[in-house]
Amino acid sequence: MDDSQAVSGRRERGGRAQRQKERSGGPVGVHRPYIVRNIPTYDILSEDNLVRIEATADRILAEVGIEFRDDPEALELWRKAGASITGNLVKFPPGMLQEILAGAPRTFTQHARNRANNVEIGGKSVVFAPSYGCPFVMDLDNGRRYGTIEDFRNFVKLAQSSPWLHHSGGTICEPVDVPVNKRHLDMVYSHVKYSDRCFMGSVTAESRAEDSIEMARIVFGRDFVDANCVIMGNVNVNSPLVWDATMTTALRAYARANQCAVVVPFILGGAMGPVTSAGAIAQAHAETMAGCALTQLERPGAPVIYGNFLSSMSLRSGSPTFGTPEPAIGSMVVGQLARRLGLPLRCSGNFTTSKLPDAHAMNESTMSMLAAIHCGANFILHSAGFLDGLLSMSYEKFMMDADFCGALHTYLDGVTIDDNQLAFDAFTEVGPGSHFFGCGHTMANYTDAFWDSELADNEPFEKWQAAGSHDAAWRANRLWKKRLAEYEAPPLDEGIDEALKDFIARRKASMEDAWY
Amino acid sequence: MDDSQAVSGRRERGGRAQRQKERSGGPVGVHRPYIVRNIPTYDILSEDNLVRIEATADRILAEVGIEFRDDPEALELWRKAGASITGNLVKFPPGMLQEILAGAPRTFTQHARNRANNVEIGGKSVVFAPSYGCPFVMDLDNGRRYGTIEDFRNFVKLAQSSPWLHHSGGTICEPVDVPVNKRHLDMVYSHVKYSDRCFMGSVTAESRAEDSIEMARIVFGRDFVDANCVIMGNVNVNSPLVWDATMTTALRAYARANQCAVVVPFILGGAMGPVTSAGAIAQAHAETMAGCALTQLERPGAPVIYGNFLSSMSLRSGSPTFGTPEPAIGSMVVGQLARRLGLPLRCSGNFTTSKLPDAHAMNESTMSMLAAIHCGANFILHSAGFLDGLLSMSYEKFMMDADFCGALHTYLDGVTIDDNQLAFDAFTEVGPGSHFFGCGHTMANYTDAFWDSELADNEPFEKWQAAGSHDAAWRANRLWKKRLAEYEAPPLDEGIDEALKDFIARRKASMEDAWY
Repeated sequence: MDDSQAVSGRRERGGRAQRQKERSGGPVGVHRPYIVRNIPTYDILSEDNLVRIEATADRILAEVGIEFRDDPEALELWRKAGASITGNLVKFPPGMLQEILAGAPRTFTQHARNRANNVEIGGKSVVFAPSYGCPFVMDLDNGRRYGTIEDFRNFVKLAQSSPWLHHSGGTICEPVDVPVNKRHLDMVYSHVKYSDRCFMGSVTAESRAEDSIEMARIVFGRDFVDANCVIMGNVNVNSPLVWDATMTTALRAYARANQCAVVVPFILGGAMGPVTSAGAIAQAHAETMAGCALTQLERPGAPVIYGNFLSSMSLRSGSPTFGTPEPAIGSMVVGQLARRLGLPLRCSGNFTTSKLPDAHAMNESTMSMLAAIHCGANFILHSAGFLDGLLSMSYEKFMMDADFCGALHTYLDGVTIDDNQLAFDAFTEVGPGSHFFGCGHTMANYTDAFWDSELADNEPFEKWQAAGSHDAAWRANRLWKKRLAEYEAPPLDEGIDEALKDFIARRKASMEDAWY
Repeated sequence: MDDSQAVSGRRERGGRAQRQKERSGGPVGVHRPYIVRNIPTYDILSEDNLVRIEATADRILAEVGIEFRDDPEALELWRKAGASITGNLVKFPPGMLQEILAGAPRTFTQHARNRANNVEIGGKSVVFAPSYGCPFVMDLDNGRRYGTIEDFRNFVKLAQSSPWLHHSGGTICEPVDVPVNKRHLDMVYSHVKYSDRCFMGSVTAESRAEDSIEMARIVFGRDFVDANCVIMGNVNVNSPLVWDATMTTALRAYARANQCAVVVPFILGGAMGPVTSAGAIAQAHAETMAGCALTQLERPGAPVIYGNFLSSMSLRSGSPTFGTPEPAIGSMVVGQLARRLGLPLRCSGNFTTSKLPDAHAMNESTMSMLAAIHCGANFILHSAGFLDGLLSMSYEKFMMDADFCGALHTYLDGVTIDDNQLAFDAFTEVGPGSHFFGCGHTMANYTDAFWDSELADNEPFEKWQAAGSHDAAWRANRLWKKRLAEYEAPPLDEGIDEALKDFIARRKASMEDAWY
């Protein structure tokens, strides 16, 4: 139970007056670097049942094992730590991973080049980052097409402009017009150049992870990076129960540099995991613990995030589904498991299979995102933009999701209980049958009252109709264009900018273009 | 913590095979009469803070008081119970209402004319009923217009056809083509004729409440009705702190007949209540307790539901807002307060201000509905249909919301933890790096696995595009028309039908048409 009785220093809610003022120029809302939740996590499973899931994960680890393919150094780390190795297959004595993970940080700071945008990861903090990894982009004007580096920059700018996102994310979309082996350089540069918030680097090859970290060293300084987290890499399990070398070498590169690996299984129940939720959760727990523990073997104390990605299959179409009830409930359980390990948590985000920014999209997204909020996720990747079952970043959906992230700031603030909020004097002032419009209590509190969405249309029907009967997608379309038109880049030290460009030029010159 | 380790008898989830079979004919899904939740309530406020809200409500009741206008019998009931009366103003000694409410039933059964559709109200049960009270209806073909009795019948039929709604509701829309003083007769008749589920009667005048109850007596028998709940009336506080005679005489008519009053304040923060959530919650608690207690003074032990309706204002447009974060969080607190009183709870529903079944609509609806789910609401009125800030019932939104109610069946089932669900044997069977598609565990469990939405399009983009690139609203439009075309009325005893028609004819003949 963690509702507080007083407004904490961090609760700098955007009041109406302040928002009105800002409305004349830039985006609405007062940016907070991250949220400190003032509502409890939603713990849905009993201790007994959590223990049964953990015991199943331990059995999977001990009796079935996990393959670590093509990474002899990882196998050697496991061997030294006491695991049993047969070929690529690693089996873990019960309790071994938990013991290794006891040394991982429970919370850490990821530093931004603008220190006002540093984020805390873990504990009660909640950080929203844009969606990640789509090959396609969409907007209402041009439909679906492959993403380009221009799209990538646009999304970095839109994230930077949003008061409700905290983090610039990573591969917001694939810049398909840049060679595969050089994209990471342009992506990391775009994050640094067009945003002054935290960001993520590449994981698609060990060398690309190292390039990403090297660019972070140019921005932050080598010693600072060795002592502080300034970049994250999001690594996926090749579920079920396989870690491949691309991922483990990238994971180890981040850990070696004292940077954060986000360790995420990818389980669609019925395909990469069992069709039953409890089993998929046990599997995810086993896979994630192994990945997280490997970071600690590489460098004890390195920051690491326990990630989760559960979803299901449509057993009619054979397609993956997203934003359905099973993974929402599963997230709540996973949150409990992560807290029992003491690790910061990444969960779900605004997921949907819809191909349009429509009712279907926001029904699934809202359910999925609220699951992340309730389960206690600290780092919520995929907070804005997803459509099309992870395949497309939508400009309009990005604005809708970011607006919803704003609503979630208010939601996570919970209810404050103090004499002013309880408002007893207002009742004696107003009395039965009157109204509170101009009363003293209302005048003293209205500037802080009520989430004010930039995209919702709360006008009466007739006024909405007279203005053109537009839907939310139309309004979002206007808003992202306005936001891009008004965007101003945050200042970047010229020396750093030149050094980055120089590094990129040298790296690009050192390789032939590769398109696969 | 109430997750169970076994599949209970009630968990008759619609498996794929069964759904596929049904797809050939009527609607998808296996109807359950109501849901028994298998996930805990989400309790967000500490004991200390709940006590502070209750103490504020007690002070409002004792020091400010509530007006009961134009109902001398209600005042007399309060006088006898020990309240202090000055004119219309009633002040309540602290603890008096709680003591009266201790005698109200914690759970009760509402009987349907088809007993398979009886619903339990209270405890862990969750009942979904359609939205209530809109003067307008909307569909994609004809836009917004005043509701008619034909629309009313259509919505009764759509609710009856939905496997995911449990209750026929009440004033689903206003049948504006029927005189105001005769509508209730046609509405109650439509519920009985076109549905065999539970329903609600009129509250807009004491005589209309009594007509509604009299019609229920024709259906169920006089003695049965005196001993059992068969009809509900939804009565609103004239917030702040006023109960008017229209509502209290209707409330007392339902209680007198041993039927259920649903007692609901209507507070838009900043207008009918303070602009701060804690104060609005305290006010709602005071108003609702007073209404619920009045039912017990009228007839001790009469069934009653503690209702809640909190929302906010847009301080820019002056319009009410719905589906925003403040009432969502407020609902969670109200749920805790209702449980401390031991009363069944009604909360929120699929609320939105959107004028279209679009992304805005389902973002707000989903947040609002999940708040009802998490706060422990037992009776969720407004579960399907609302658009336009309570003013319009939308045919398309009705289908979207009903589909979401289906997803919530799965959500409320939570996670089952047993050996089969934990699936350890599946891991030994499949092993690392393979897949679970055809494995024994998948084959044994797939028919029960995964919520299968009738409206979501999970197909790959290309297939969706080839099928016409339709959005969710388009699909919902097709679905309600299909459902109405396929509708078959449940059998109704001819003698009862004739008796109802005779009663209606006599009552209609006894009054001039009144249009206000």
